Amino acid sequence: MPNPLLDDRTVDFLLYEVFDVERLTELPAFREHSQETFDLYLGACRKLARERLFPSYRAIDETPPRLENGRVKVHPLLRELYPRMAELGLLNATRPESVGGQQLPAAVASLSNAYLMAANLSAYAYAGLTSSAARLIESFGSESLRDEYMQRMYGGEWTGTMALTEPQAGSSLSDVNTRATPTSGSHHLMSGSKIFISGGDQDLTENIVHMVLARIDGAPPGVKGISLFVVPARRQEGDRLVPNDTAAAGVIHKIGWKGIPSIALNLGEGGDCHGYLVGQPHRGLSYMFQMMNEARLMVGLNGVSTASVAYQEALEYAKTRPQGRPLRNKNPEAPQIPLIEHADVRRMLLRQKAIVEGGLALLCYASREQDLAEHAPTAEERREHQLLLDLLTPVAKSFPAERGFESNTLSVQVHGGYGYSSEYLPEAWLRDQKLNSLHEGTTGIQSIDLLGRKVSIEGGLAVELLGREIARAVGDARAASVNAGWCDAVEKAFASTRDVTRHLSSLGSPEATLLHSVDYLELFSTTIIGWMWLLQAAAARRALAKRPEDAARYEGRLCAAQYFIVTELPRVELLAALCRSGEDSYARAEPDWF
Amino acid sequence: MPNPLLDDRTVDFLLYEVFDVERLTELPAFREHSQETFDLYLGACRKLARERLFPSYRAIDETPPRLENGRVKVHPLLRELYPRMAELGLLNATRPESVGGQQLPAAVASLSNAYLMAANLSAYAYAGLTSSAARLIESFGSESLRDEYMQRMYGGEWTGTMALTEPQAGSSLSDVNTRATPTSGSHHLMSGSKIFISGGDQDLTENIVHMVLARIDGAPPGVKGISLFVVPARRQEGDRLVPNDTAAAGVIHKIGWKGIPSIALNLGEGGDCHGYLVGQPHRGLSYMFQMMNEARLMVGLNGVSTASVAYQEALEYAKTRPQGRPLRNKNPEAPQIPLIEHADVRRMLLRQKAIVEGGLALLCYASREQDLAEHAPTAEERREHQLLLDLLTPVAKSFPAERGFESNTLSVQVHGGYGYSSEYLPEAWLRDQKLNSLHEGTTGIQSIDLLGRKVSIEGGLAVELLGREIARAVGDARAASVNAGWCDAVEKAFASTRDVTRHLSSLGSPEATLLHSVDYLELFSTTIIGWMWLLQAAAARRALAKRPEDAARYEGRLCAAQYFIVTELPRVELLAALCRSGEDSYARAEPDWF
Repeated sequence: MPNPLLDDRTVDFLLYEVFDVERLTELPAFREHSQETFDLYLGACRKLARERLFPSYRAIDETPPRLENGRVKVHPLLRELYPRMAELGLLNATRPESVGGQQLPAAVASLSNAYLMAANLSAYAYAGLTSSAARLIESFGSESLRDEYMQRMYGGEWTGTMALTEPQAGSSLSDVNTRATPTSGSHHLMSGSKIFISGGDQDLTENIVHMVLARIDGAPPGVKGISLFVVPARRQEGDRLVPNDTAAAGVIHKIGWKGIPSIALNLGEGGDCHGYLVGQPHRGLSYMFQMMNEARLMVGLNGVSTASVAYQEALEYAKTRPQGRPLRNKNPEAPQIPLIEHADVRRMLLRQKAIVEGGLALLCYASREQDLAEHAPTAEERREHQLLLDLLTPVAKSFPAERGFESNTLSVQVHGGYGYSSEYLPEAWLRDQKLNSLHEGTTGIQSIDLLGRKVSIEGGLAVELLGREIARAVGDARAASVNAGWCDAVEKAFASTRDVTRHLSSLGSPEATLLHSVDYLELFSTTIIGWMWLLQAAAARRALAKRPEDAARYEGRLCAAQYFIVTELPRVELLAALCRSGEDSYARAEPDWF
Repeated sequence: MPNPLLDDRTVDFLLYEVFDVERLTELPAFREHSQETFDLYLGACRKLARERLFPSYRAIDETPPRLENGRVKVHPLLRELYPRMAELGLLNATRPESVGGQQLPAAVASLSNAYLMAANLSAYAYAGLTSSAARLIESFGSESLRDEYMQRMYGGEWTGTMALTEPQAGSSLSDVNTRATPTSGSHHLMSGSKIFISGGDQDLTENIVHMVLARIDGAPPGVKGISLFVVPARRQEGDRLVPNDTAAAGVIHKIGWKGIPSIALNLGEGGDCHGYLVGQPHRGLSYMFQMMNEARLMVGLNGVSTASVAYQEALEYAKTRPQGRPLRNKNPEAPQIPLIEHADVRRMLLRQKAIVEGGLALLCYASREQDLAEHAPTAEERREHQLLLDLLTPVAKSFPAERGFESNTLSVQVHGGYGYSSEYLPEAWLRDQKLNSLHEGTTGIQSIDLLGRKVSIEGGLAVELLGREIARAVGDARAASVNAGWCDAVEKAFASTRDVTRHLSSLGSPEATLLHSVDYLELFSTTIIGWMWLLQAAAARRALAKRPEDAARYEGRLCAAQYFIVTELPRVELLAALCRSGEDSYARAEPDWF
């Protein structure tokens, strides 16, 4: 069987049975839509992913981008794939008709895009980055920037990038020091060096539009002096495009995502790099954060998708590879049994399923929150959905990155010695996955965002809203006759999460509050995914009552729910005790004690 | 600072302060030795590792072996490195003088070899495999096999391999079906296909000696019909070496260990492959298991070493890379602080230290048990040490593989985006490490070996012996004024481990006993490493009392002990509850439920 990338029935189950996304069509923003239009888009993405993107994956992974005579060359197959994605309307699928979009709910678009990511993460990345960059111009750019850049980007003509990081600054954006010098014209003159710019050069499209963070001469130090600029690789002069003094200084030899180059980008070495201010001066970081939050959800989806395709590969391998004999009957003359008959192999598969589908449920939930934060009827509702979305974003970004990496590791392990060879694909997905704990804010940074900011906004309102949602889920699960022990466990995990949140927030110093921030993120994430599995268990129970003929898959969901809730959720208590204890081993360790 | 591979003071601390290996010189077998001779060997290994093996690592990683005209070519640097290792006496360092060895304790040899592994895992692998193969001939081979093969292997003239696995059998050795047909001469005619044969072909030495598992015509099915053969790549005819009809059918494209090829090896395609029986017919598996148990300890040491070199790299990076500002003072005009000043980076480093040094302590302990199992004064003592060694072997193999991989992942994470690039080495070590959970018995197989066999031998005597050792360690730690909470925690973890062992062993069916075998292995391993850290804490306390001027490193060991015992050890209770619960999610999941 060819790898399905994601399990279609799981995606349909999440969209229509767990999260009722067809109800979004009751909102004015989505009233042109129906389950049919959702399925049409979903079907088109599935088809493109399976027929074009996935068959190109291995070739692209084997031939990384290279720098030749100052220009980056990517795998030629990408020149065929990128226009296909643009044709699908992918780049502005969720945007309004006024900018040429289909105004699809983010929930539907996300789960559709997941197929493309699972098929070919780096091919998709051009689209994801371009879409985010264009969205920034749509939200904050002037009319002329929208006309000149946004439309060409949404149309697939030009790609976009995010140029934040600099070599000396890394994750510390307050140290950005690319300069923007005002001129008498409409542009600034840019100069500086950026690094890790994905898609920062390529030979797919005639132009590339960099969204650049820079400091206008005389701007205040730190994050309050950062502005956002559009810096095209080639700028319009009269009726032609001329080079805009941006140069690829080097290609990073990434270990995965081989289809898209990550480059060191120099701006203005010749003193002739034009940048166009987006929005107000010194507001760049706040603009970028809109994009960044969406980018973090995209990274979460990358993580889930990369874990999913590897899980599907391991599942097929385990079903078809004969290996060993049952514990009870080792008769060497009996035929060997498939790997999946061994309990520990099933454990590894069920763990992958719990991570992949638990993560996918969270991404589906979070993107529905995006839809509601933007389009719910009242301002109060929109505000609440936004708060909940903001709270869940660090989890939706980091859980798939961290546990997804574990899941990818298990896919290698299920393949045994073959998994250690590049003749099989699991090792490639393992390499791809590793980036997700690093880019768009490392896991450590996500933990500080969650515990240092998100849980305390408006006096902790988001956590209360979360509590309301979890209580509702527990009520629904009990009504659907889900195992009472699981309901109790999720209720208890949330209570511990809330209590430890209050305790840590009350400690009075950021060092004390944040000392165990990554342990806290893990605790919080485990509770969230436990909740996601309770939601799925309730929907599976309801479905089993209605359609017992489809029992197999629903029983499988109940097994995965059981696995996660019984095996993983108890770790919340342990982590809560650890966070409360203020265990200080690494707090007190001096550098020369290592 | 150049990467030290392992921390010398840690190695010295383990050998001389924690495990008192100089006391081994009281045994007749080691009476020619002293701490001076130990240090001489250790020093020679450190020097070779740092000056020759490590500087070659990257070049070798970048140029994997290739098959050309039926012969495998490896990186030419290996031709310089292999003789250096042989000159050191590495190949028979622990063997008696009668076979040209130095009769060094395994404990000293292991920690010395760890430097070579950390420096260049695949270069070392030729030596490790050759040594094990020669050892098999030494133990079970005839005088003529010893003369013809063993001496040349120990001398560094020829290399050796282990040829167990076959494509259709994988981990299932009972399905081995390479054939050995008796002839009227002293040889059998071999025919069959082996796979994953490390060093199965190379262009370093004039000959390669394969230790091959095969089935003599008419042998019983299953593991009881497997015999062991010496099958050289070239056999002696008169005074010259002629090809022995062994052929490299393909090179596996491994993702790590790039210096040593893993090949598919065909025997006897031309009907002219001679094999020489080692020991008795049908006893091959039991012979091989002697080697396998040693090989498993070697894999454990590979895992610790690979985690160590990456930990040292991350430590140096964290001390020297400026990044961000303290939580308490974000003034963007103040200089950035080194990464190590961030609590979460210190957490990642201390976790690596806890894994690396906890694992290294276990390997040191286990290899001292090897020494005592062979050389302790009384048969009773030797038997007890052997039992304890057998019990600890699956832990010593799998803990470094599994937690070492996590540690290597953290080394990548500490390097941030740079860690994702092959310009930095952590990603290479991450690839190298992954093999260790797969070869010489996967982690699942280790767990079945532990819970299905080792804990029940002689009515569970090994676990009782372990209990005695742990009780002694707790007593010593209390006497040295180690934190009483830590002592209690280790005592409690062992009690839970013992109780859950009894419970699972009493369940009456192998399916029930082994259902959570990997969870049990993790529980057991966590207790063992907790014990290792208590031993180190006690030694550190004693040293601090005697030499307060060396405080820094000893304080660091106490921090790592605290980290492991307070943060990790409580998981034992959770895992014990899980194992007892018989949680059946994956037991009941059918293949089509996934």
